[in-house]
Amino acid sequence: MENALRMVLLLDFYGPLLTDRQQEVFQMYFHDDLSLGEIGEELGVSRQAIYDIVRRTGLILEEFDSKLGLIERHRERQLLYGELLALIELCRQDGASSPHLIAMEEKILKARSTS
Amino acid sequence: MENALRMVLLLDFYGPLLTDRQQEVFQMYFHDDLSLGEIGEELGVSRQAIYDIVRRTGLILEEFDSKLGLIERHRERQLLYGELLALIELCRQDGASSPHLIAMEEKILKARSTS
Repeated sequence: MENALRMVLLLDFYGPLLTDRQQEVFQMYFHDDLSLGEIGEELGVSRQAIYDIVRRTGLILEEFDSKLGLIERHRERQLLYGELLALIELCRQDGASSPHLIAMEEKILKARSTS
Repeated sequence: MENALRMVLLLDFYGPLLTDRQQEVFQMYFHDDLSLGEIGEELGVSRQAIYDIVRRTGLILEEFDSKLGLIERHRERQLLYGELLALIELCRQDGASSPHLIAMEEKILKARSTS
């Protein structure tokens, strides 16, 4: 399951670099949790052909990430946003009060959810 | 020159997806500002061959960016960091004072310079 989560994340970041067929199969297998046999039936090809696409697409995605490192950069940004939100809370505990603190919080929450 | 800046930025984001030769030629032309003839001489190939590599590599990079949009996402983050820094300044003008504001500022400045 941990692997499936990583694969879905890789697909999010690098999916547009794949062919339509690779995206489709990968999505069905890791995101929609269909079996190799079910996907093969759906697309009219053998279970083995689907297995080959899934395996090869995983390798391609990992190679993209080893070159561009977008997942790690994403993780670092999420960490930063979390730290900034915690610091805003600490500012409040210090008695600092400003509508601008609220504006910051909103901007960071938005960035965190769309990043 | 505006085009050269864009090309250098594209190379920053997607360079690792290129071949070594594409990276090398693109770097020499757009970053080091050598002429096609100079690069050709340096690498022992014709000016025309260098022109072809530069042109083709530019198209490849633009295609990567049309798919992944990293330049636009980078621009949006830089904008966010600038807005957050401005809001911290406004908090200060409101009389809010906390060491945590300074910590936030430092984290944002660091993220802005390494993003």
